[in-house]
Amino acid sequence: MSSLAEYEAQRASLIEDDRALRREYLTSNSRSEKEIGADKIVRRIRASEAETIWKEEHSSIPHPFPGMEFLTGKSIIVKTQLFEILSKMPKGALLHAHLDATVNAEFLLELALKQPAIHVRIQKPLEASNLATNLPEFRILPREQCTDIPSLTGPSYPLGSWVSLQNARNSFAPDLGGKDGFDNWVIGSMTINPAEAYGTHNTIAKIWKKFGSTFITSTGLIRVEPIFSEYIRQFFRSSIADGISYVEPRINFLYKHMYGADGQDNIPHREWLVMFDRVSNEVKEEMAQQGRAGQFIGARIIYSTIRFITPEELEWYTEDCIALKKEFPHLIAGFDLVGDENVLKPLIYYAETLLRFRERQKEEGVDIPFIFHAGETLGDGTEADVNLYDAILLGTKRIGHGYSLIKHPKLVETCRQKGIAVEVCPISNEILRLTSSMPMHPLPALLNNGVPVALCSDDPAVFGNMGLTFDYFQVLAASEITGLSTLGAIARDSIEFSTLDGEEKKIALDEFERRWAEFLDYVLEYGQ
Amino acid sequence: MSSLAEYEAQRASLIEDDRALRREYLTSNSRSEKEIGADKIVRRIRASEAETIWKEEHSSIPHPFPGMEFLTGKSIIVKTQLFEILSKMPKGALLHAHLDATVNAEFLLELALKQPAIHVRIQKPLEASNLATNLPEFRILPREQCTDIPSLTGPSYPLGSWVSLQNARNSFAPDLGGKDGFDNWVIGSMTINPAEAYGTHNTIAKIWKKFGSTFITSTGLIRVEPIFSEYIRQFFRSSIADGISYVEPRINFLYKHMYGADGQDNIPHREWLVMFDRVSNEVKEEMAQQGRAGQFIGARIIYSTIRFITPEELEWYTEDCIALKKEFPHLIAGFDLVGDENVLKPLIYYAETLLRFRERQKEEGVDIPFIFHAGETLGDGTEADVNLYDAILLGTKRIGHGYSLIKHPKLVETCRQKGIAVEVCPISNEILRLTSSMPMHPLPALLNNGVPVALCSDDPAVFGNMGLTFDYFQVLAASEITGLSTLGAIARDSIEFSTLDGEEKKIALDEFERRWAEFLDYVLEYGQ
Repeated sequence: MSSLAEYEAQRASLIEDDRALRREYLTSNSRSEKEIGADKIVRRIRASEAETIWKEEHSSIPHPFPGMEFLTGKSIIVKTQLFEILSKMPKGALLHAHLDATVNAEFLLELALKQPAIHVRIQKPLEASNLATNLPEFRILPREQCTDIPSLTGPSYPLGSWVSLQNARNSFAPDLGGKDGFDNWVIGSMTINPAEAYGTHNTIAKIWKKFGSTFITSTGLIRVEPIFSEYIRQFFRSSIADGISYVEPRINFLYKHMYGADGQDNIPHREWLVMFDRVSNEVKEEMAQQGRAGQFIGARIIYSTIRFITPEELEWYTEDCIALKKEFPHLIAGFDLVGDENVLKPLIYYAETLLRFRERQKEEGVDIPFIFHAGETLGDGTEADVNLYDAILLGTKRIGHGYSLIKHPKLVETCRQKGIAVEVCPISNEILRLTSSMPMHPLPALLNNGVPVALCSDDPAVFGNMGLTFDYFQVLAASEITGLSTLGAIARDSIEFSTLDGEEKKIALDEFERRWAEFLDYVLEYGQ
Repeated sequence: MSSLAEYEAQRASLIEDDRALRREYLTSNSRSEKEIGADKIVRRIRASEAETIWKEEHSSIPHPFPGMEFLTGKSIIVKTQLFEILSKMPKGALLHAHLDATVNAEFLLELALKQPAIHVRIQKPLEASNLATNLPEFRILPREQCTDIPSLTGPSYPLGSWVSLQNARNSFAPDLGGKDGFDNWVIGSMTINPAEAYGTHNTIAKIWKKFGSTFITSTGLIRVEPIFSEYIRQFFRSSIADGISYVEPRINFLYKHMYGADGQDNIPHREWLVMFDRVSNEVKEEMAQQGRAGQFIGARIIYSTIRFITPEELEWYTEDCIALKKEFPHLIAGFDLVGDENVLKPLIYYAETLLRFRERQKEEGVDIPFIFHAGETLGDGTEADVNLYDAILLGTKRIGHGYSLIKHPKLVETCRQKGIAVEVCPISNEILRLTSSMPMHPLPALLNNGVPVALCSDDPAVFGNMGLTFDYFQVLAASEITGLSTLGAIARDSIEFSTLDGEEKKIALDEFERRWAEFLDYVLEYGQ
């Protein structure tokens, strides 16, 4: 190799070899002129904004850069042209989101305020200094237990007593901010703020405590029949507004009942599915009436419970799941076990029950794929990391998070070859302190290794990354190889690796292509 | 697969497959009983200390955990048993260290204070508020230019004038801390402190500014003939004390001369090598006299210049390097271009000159391997990241840092197959903000992929990670798969992938094995 020209040819070939596994390259020969043009525009804007808006000094944002901590950088992100463009992008499917954290806390509070029987209580006096840790407990009460205690904050409040949400809000102490103070307190208890993520709770273990508490708080509002339906409706509508056309939320079935409008804790799982189905159909109908039928293909549920139960308890849930699948075959998409892998039980602890679950499915003539969380950890060889081996051996259809997957050459190869997609949740990973910023995230490595990826928001109500636009934004900030074609490939794969089957999947993909073409036109016009 | 036993067998086999590429597994059949026992002890202590010393509350360390930010966690590290054990470990070779940052700043200041002709100056008045940014400039002056200006800090100090180091120190303003204040000011100008790394300079670009300034400051003290010799001697001695038996420092030859004892800037590169050779031989002799000959195999130089020169200027350096190699074939180990890859010129900018350099070597009958810095970046497809392709295509013997290597499947495969070792510098990467902590570092992924790794300290005088014990400590904190056998494999590879040849390498490896066996005895005794 003597000449520079020869060197450059070898170099181009090596770079091509290295990128050959990327999923958008598999179809790159067919990339349209339009897509190439739109991709250039997006790259140009990304480069330009990296040098302008991301380099300005911001008093409250000490070190801005593209892909920085989401909770701090969000106020910059929403001002960018890149964000404006991505908000118009069709996103395909949302395959990893915990239902209880899919609707923003403000909206949930509004829903709750419409229910006079919803009450709130605290066990310690509220003070300005303990607003962040003295958390509200919510419950809908039977009519006869409803109270007329006037306030939650007065000296006459009997600690531990239920106060109606309306009363609590209307009389919230002025020195705690009055009604606005109440709203902030409630919303703060169901969301993570920057001071928590990057200050007081700046380790994985500490932020998980805060994270877990948001679910404990919000469940008292969400697991209430009249709210649940409206919550789901809002989840679907806001997803559609962000360009998401299909969702597979995980629903936590740990509690065996939810509360009815009558304040009784007696609505069983099958009723949850009835509600889910009804609202899903209503939203489809609503979209059809607006001539937007293709924008919402529908919704299915990944049945989930939590990794602290015993194997015997798990057996109850697997049987429950089978029964639901038999009654609602179109609604149950899969099965998962959730919770902080770093501290809860590993999959191997449940292996026997999970193997039996598969046998039982055969006996009952149903097919409920595992769609396991695994490797949501910084570990290498820890139980949480080793979950990846179990998830794959148990035949998981996709991997939730798979943050540590890139460490394992054999598993990367298996995911690529068998088509096991990874549900990557960049903003979730960053706020839960697996990574400090997007450029440190393993996603670019997964993409270069040809592992199929579906981009997901995980718990947008807690993290503030509603929809998928924010996560796509972060993906674009993390790699110069990644461009608009990459985002398109990821969105396509979210449909490809969903549990949609034959005809449904084809419709979803066709509709995606139609909208993608429209989107490219939009970008080309934007860039002029 | 129906039974649990069958499942568990498949699982064990999958885990084994996934780890089969690891370099310590290649020889695991021959792992001695001793090594297995010592490994268990180290794992037990690691697990125990993770739950004890790393979970205690420390007023100045808000979120302690193993592998945390080095500059904050160092005071905990040095109290651990793990650190005590690792400090006794034979480390093999140190293959990536910039000579100008290999001796701690306190020692360098002591050396400088012994030279009456060393002077210091500043261009702005020193105040308590600008001590961190108002940096000293040092120079040795010819006798006739030496001054008797009494102080650097008095109101009568003519800004920009040289003051002898002794005078400056003795009369340093009491409100700036007097002599201690002077020492802190000088040492602070040559080191990075936690407030800088994790606060004021908490981005890659910002910390590189501080990092770069430490070299600009220290060069005025180091590139002085009488100091240079003693500096090298201390580097060798302190390395030996940490269990390092061979070093391949990079020396920056950008400046064509250093200062002599007479204050003249006229000592050419060949004289630097004469000094290096002499001191190296003196230290070998010293070790032999102590009956410790095997503990210091020697030292060779990686000739380096900086990536901001023009290709024409580079040609001068390559010719200079060839001339030195011909005169000192045993001293020149390789050639590199250094500096912040994210902002300086990429390797491709120099490709033509570098290709010609290889031709010229053939003409001159010398062999000077490239040992390039590449991929010391969070980029994916950026110029700094793309340096990896060029480094490999140009035939680099090892890769300095290779932080972004794990993103590139083809390059990972190439490094494994061709035996291109990566000089991994964990603490450097963390302080220079490529990663926030060790568990986020890509090293475990490289190890699982069977890429040969040599662990290195990079710039220990600036980072405070003198020797290699601290870096080995961080490696052990980052992975549960990694154990004592992994550290042994890495240490062995540091010799294997050095530029030592045939007989020398064999001596170094044999000596390593002898010391490793002794070390295992020590660990076994420690663990009783």
